[in-house]
Amino acid sequence: MIKVSIYGASGYAGGEILRILLSHPKVTIQQVTSRKFSGQLVSQVHPNLRKKTDLIFSHPDQLKKCDLLFVALPNGESMKYMTNLKTFAKKIIDLGADYRLREQAVFENWYKQKHLNPEMLEKFVYGIVELHRQEIKKTSYVAGPGCEATVSILSLYPLIKHNLIEGKIIIDAKMSSSQAGLKPSFSSHHPERSGVVRSYMPSGHRHTAEIIQELSPFANDLDVAISATALDMVRGLLVTIHTVPKNGITEKEVWKAYRTEYANEPFIRIVKERQGLYRFPEPKILQGTNFCDIGFEMDTVSKRLVVIGAIDNLVKGTAGQAVQAMNLMYGFPEETGLEFPGLHPI
Amino acid sequence: MIKVSIYGASGYAGGEILRILLSHPKVTIQQVTSRKFSGQLVSQVHPNLRKKTDLIFSHPDQLKKCDLLFVALPNGESMKYMTNLKTFAKKIIDLGADYRLREQAVFENWYKQKHLNPEMLEKFVYGIVELHRQEIKKTSYVAGPGCEATVSILSLYPLIKHNLIEGKIIIDAKMSSSQAGLKPSFSSHHPERSGVVRSYMPSGHRHTAEIIQELSPFANDLDVAISATALDMVRGLLVTIHTVPKNGITEKEVWKAYRTEYANEPFIRIVKERQGLYRFPEPKILQGTNFCDIGFEMDTVSKRLVVIGAIDNLVKGTAGQAVQAMNLMYGFPEETGLEFPGLHPI
Amino acid sequence: MIKVSIYGASGYAGGEILRILLSHPKVTIQQVTSRKFSGQLVSQVHPNLRKKTDLIFSHPDQLKKCDLLFVALPNGESMKYMTNLKTFAKKIIDLGADYRLREQAVFENWYKQKHLNPEMLEKFVYGIVELHRQEIKKTSYVAGPGCEATVSILSLYPLIKHNLIEGKIIIDAKMSSSQAGLKPSFSSHHPERSGVVRSYMPSGHRHTAEIIQELSPFANDLDVAISATALDMVRGLLVTIHTVPKNGITEKEVWKAYRTEYANEPFIRIVKERQGLYRFPEPKILQGTNFCDIGFEMDTVSKRLVVIGAIDNLVKGTAGQAVQAMNLMYGFPEETGLEFPGLHPI
Amino acid sequence: MIKVSIYGASGYAGGEILRILLSHPKVTIQQVTSRKFSGQLVSQVHPNLRKKTDLIFSHPDQLKKCDLLFVALPNGESMKYMTNLKTFAKKIIDLGADYRLREQAVFENWYKQKHLNPEMLEKFVYGIVELHRQEIKKTSYVAGPGCEATVSILSLYPLIKHNLIEGKIIIDAKMSSSQAGLKPSFSSHHPERSGVVRSYMPSGHRHTAEIIQELSPFANDLDVAISATALDMVRGLLVTIHTVPKNGITEKEVWKAYRTEYANEPFIRIVKERQGLYRFPEPKILQGTNFCDIGFEMDTVSKRLVVIGAIDNLVKGTAGQAVQAMNLMYGFPEETGLEFPGLHPI
Repeated sequence: MIKVSIYGASGYAGGEILRILLSHPKVTIQQVTSRKFSGQLVSQVHPNLRKKTDLIFSHPDQLKKCDLLFVALPNGESMKYMTNLKTFAKKIIDLGADYRLREQAVFENWYKQKHLNPEMLEKFVYGIVELHRQEIKKTSYVAGPGCEATVSILSLYPLIKHNLIEGKIIIDAKMSSSQAGLKPSFSSHHPERSGVVRSYMPSGHRHTAEIIQELSPFANDLDVAISATALDMVRGLLVTIHTVPKNGITEKEVWKAYRTEYANEPFIRIVKERQGLYRFPEPKILQGTNFCDIGFEMDTVSKRLVVIGAIDNLVKGTAGQAVQAMNLMYGFPEETGLEFPGLHPI
Repeated sequence: MIKVSIYGASGYAGGEILRILLSHPKVTIQQVTSRKFSGQLVSQVHPNLRKKTDLIFSHPDQLKKCDLLFVALPNGESMKYMTNLKTFAKKIIDLGADYRLREQAVFENWYKQKHLNPEMLEKFVYGIVELHRQEIKKTSYVAGPGCEATVSILSLYPLIKHNLIEGKIIIDAKMSSSQAGLKPSFSSHHPERSGVVRSYMPSGHRHTAEIIQELSPFANDLDVAISATALDMVRGLLVTIHTVPKNGITEKEVWKAYRTEYANEPFIRIVKERQGLYRFPEPKILQGTNFCDIGFEMDTVSKRLVVIGAIDNLVKGTAGQAVQAMNLMYGFPEETGLEFPGLHPI
Repeated sequence: MIKVSIYGASGYAGGEILRILLSHPKVTIQQVTSRKFSGQLVSQVHPNLRKKTDLIFSHPDQLKKCDLLFVALPNGESMKYMTNLKTFAKKIIDLGADYRLREQAVFENWYKQKHLNPEMLEKFVYGIVELHRQEIKKTSYVAGPGCEATVSILSLYPLIKHNLIEGKIIIDAKMSSSQAGLKPSFSSHHPERSGVVRSYMPSGHRHTAEIIQELSPFANDLDVAISATALDMVRGLLVTIHTVPKNGITEKEVWKAYRTEYANEPFIRIVKERQGLYRFPEPKILQGTNFCDIGFEMDTVSKRLVVIGAIDNLVKGTAGQAVQAMNLMYGFPEETGLEFPGLHPI
Repeated sequence: MIKVSIYGASGYAGGEILRILLSHPKVTIQQVTSRKFSGQLVSQVHPNLRKKTDLIFSHPDQLKKCDLLFVALPNGESMKYMTNLKTFAKKIIDLGADYRLREQAVFENWYKQKHLNPEMLEKFVYGIVELHRQEIKKTSYVAGPGCEATVSILSLYPLIKHNLIEGKIIIDAKMSSSQAGLKPSFSSHHPERSGVVRSYMPSGHRHTAEIIQELSPFANDLDVAISATALDMVRGLLVTIHTVPKNGITEKEVWKAYRTEYANEPFIRIVKERQGLYRFPEPKILQGTNFCDIGFEMDTVSKRLVVIGAIDNLVKGTAGQAVQAMNLMYGFPEETGLEFPGLHPI
């Protein structure tokens, strides 16, 4: 049994880590912190955990030593505290954006702020298990990837590694409201947010930097563009990725690339069926699961390879992926705590 | 390990039983049958089960002997086959309406059809564990209650048993679309069904008969009325029950009644808080769980005790409750396989 | 042509009045005020009005004289300004709660605040046209009714006037998010508000006072109780009203009461059909319309008359009803500007 | 006043035409036909029209002569009847796909069926008013464009005409459920259709043919690809179009192209704002309107011009556009009957 604490546990990401760890057979939850809800029952903030835990939020200043610390703070916050936090835990998994980009300049360019703790950047391993399994097993510091980056990287990685596509990669991302966190604003106000198909970021999405960082080792001059549209859903993320296959590439070769890379991956499913309603990845049936579903279609009219990827942004895109990394770091079976299959219908 | 089969596993109820049993440590699934999908992968019908099972649907005629058989057929079907089915399994849990009502005449009155197997009626125990735990432990035949009846009975039982209310009991039920099963119709057609607040049954709901049957032992001349409204949700069921407290009854006595009956119930939570958004039961955070959440409020202006109950109609209202009964029948811990806490946000 | 201004035009109610008046052939919009958006284009706040108007918000301090002034402020605000506002306009229609209740004590009891302008209370006519048509024609001051009160009063009025029901009247109200206005809060935050069936007010709804005030002249000792549940919809309001018919009352007599009172009402439709999906009132097809649809069913098992009423809370429940009153006050045809039939499907 | 009939008026398109024409001051509706609902009240099928019309469906065989006939049949049907139908009306507007493509071979290639009435193909004018205003004024036969084609063509036309883009044009279309018509199927079954982000057609959308036909006169070798994703909405259509600007093209030139083509168009709005939630086109506020909203953003990281277009698929995408064409054909002001501004919030 390892002792784990969650630093910043009142948000949606922290709540999901807690939900997952509460049924994890190798983990004891030592503390969950919240400045705002310190002293209150966890289940008042996360009502799904009623009768599942009697935990009470600790104030961050009362943090005690633990084996592993999950840090779930808003972007730009964890780099303020990291030097201190690492004195409390041998291993840290940070879920924010602060340690995802290895180059300080890249971070500062995309996030428009100075990095306050650049010396730690090289210590963190980017936490996509499917790409960095061996490094994660050995590291003490993992940076949890962005949800949009996670599904895009996983969808593209085999194609780029196997040299199957060329030219511009266009990621048309369909996003849900939980991605923006739990702070209310006019943009999240139900009468304004309900029913939207909102082009909130036609270009300039910051996860582009992560995608380029992770896929660049396998390709020269990656040209990646994201357009993000917010939909009326709470959880879930689907990317429709428009790519151009290299001349002569066949569907068979695409299948082969995905199988080669992912056949043994416990959380990746290639979803491409001839019939049925769920022929391609569909985020609605992924809610609560750690799966990343990936499908594709060759466009026979316009020369195009359309790739479709789906995840639950709060699980495979955040908390589940982080627990998957934790399992690796401690040698637990990788699926531990992440077995929920998802619901149908939902 | 017991060997379990599901007779009629392509529907929503059968699919949920299968989902739950796939992670049940004491169960081996022997067969799942479907006339229509015989020979096909289960995951083509239940796409959430991809990578979770390689099961293939068997034709009902190929049913083999097993320890326990779940029967998940449309109302009016299982009574046609029961005489035969019981030669295949020592224990049977039937999820349809055919064996819920002990009196043949009551069944025929509410369902407007002749009962084809009345001699078996008295062998079935009505499957609400919280009311019939001891009988279920000993029986071989359980009739799974209707979802609307389940949440109504559980919400009302302590009040009636403790003699706290009088007069008419009005159940205003808010229903979801999965309750009607997987057969498409114009009433389930998305452009017509989306966004509705549809008074589809202002009176005459057949679950009334179950409620009266179960609560009558504790009260004379029960007067129960249901009005059912369909909402734009797939899973979930909330009842707002308008009752009249007897003279002088206080909130404290109501609390006491619920605590007396339910303090040790693993799947019932009394939800009644002073603050927060989830002060009362809310079906959206119950999706996938076996909880029945119950709350109440004394109306100080009009003399009224408003009781609010919520469940996931496919879990506590159908498949989860059935597995809970199975656990009892075999002496497994009652929560086995039913631990999922639900998601927030969702 | 009359000159009309809207005082407080950036909210949802003010925006709807503006939308309706922009196509009203007898009205010139003189000013629309907003403290916060003063100087900005109206269409930046109400994006549906792009290309429909070039109006710019005026600061409230720049209000000029006009023929009629709509006041659309949060509850408790208009009574602060009314003495001043009536120097600017011959006629005023106030949409808030401040002038709906004729008795100061009743207002103060339900709204838990002192009334700041009690001397004006008796000057205001309660603005349900169907009950107060003659008074509205003659008055200079109209108080726009609450949305929940509007649909409840209209649904119940014929039954009570014709002496058809007795005992407790239970209004189970299904509410939408626009009713709470445009101020974001955690309770309106999309991840928390989406998908809810939220019992936010099982008892104690303040519109009870309006209902009792308006129906008391026709009945002794009215016992009215409201339970309000918030749903995942932006517009629309449905009430399921559970009443007890007096002994011997038949469906025919109920029909007769509704026909007697409403046969000539342009905005009331009795919706009670034998077949089809829209047999009873359904708020989704009322979006944007000024209709109040009313239906009913006799419960033949439990002695009950279930009445179902539906409106668009922002139109018949607020802005449309106010324009209907304005039409009466100026002798315009009552339907003017309110002809939109609603959409199907939607 | 012209006498208009609708042939096939029980579907969603026919219902919308009827809704619009009922408030059109220059039109008398002579007949609305339906084989299935012949003899029944129109309002039983289109419940929004209760109290708006007493029309009864005629059987198609009872069709009488009229001035203009709208034909709203499923694809492949109107070409069976056209030879006969044109003996009944001087002018015909056909809403199906049968007469949209001028080349018989192109039709047969995309629709995988033989054209039964190819000799009429050249008589029909493609009904996008903004591109074919002069021809529509003079023609007797208009083919109503597909909804997806309409918004795509309108979004792209100025860019292509002004020679601003090059290379592949990728249309990522977000679709609603009403597009599939009123026939229930498992894919439209609420539990399966609710909440989806369904990649139902990653390539091969038949509207591609219309887009190429209409834009080819302005460009060589158009390379157009559509990927269509179905969302959980009933009405509305948004396209995110990923294009590559020619070298050196500036945002200013894009603005100029749109202004040049559309500044005087009554139903096109360029929506591109610096702030606010509705900075770009948003289909939810277009419900019921005939607007096509178009916006764009230059991607400064990846060389891209992202164009966003939104319509109500049943109005500007079908019925409204058809009435707009009718207005032109008879010299009525183009906006007549199409003034509804849309609702906010909704």
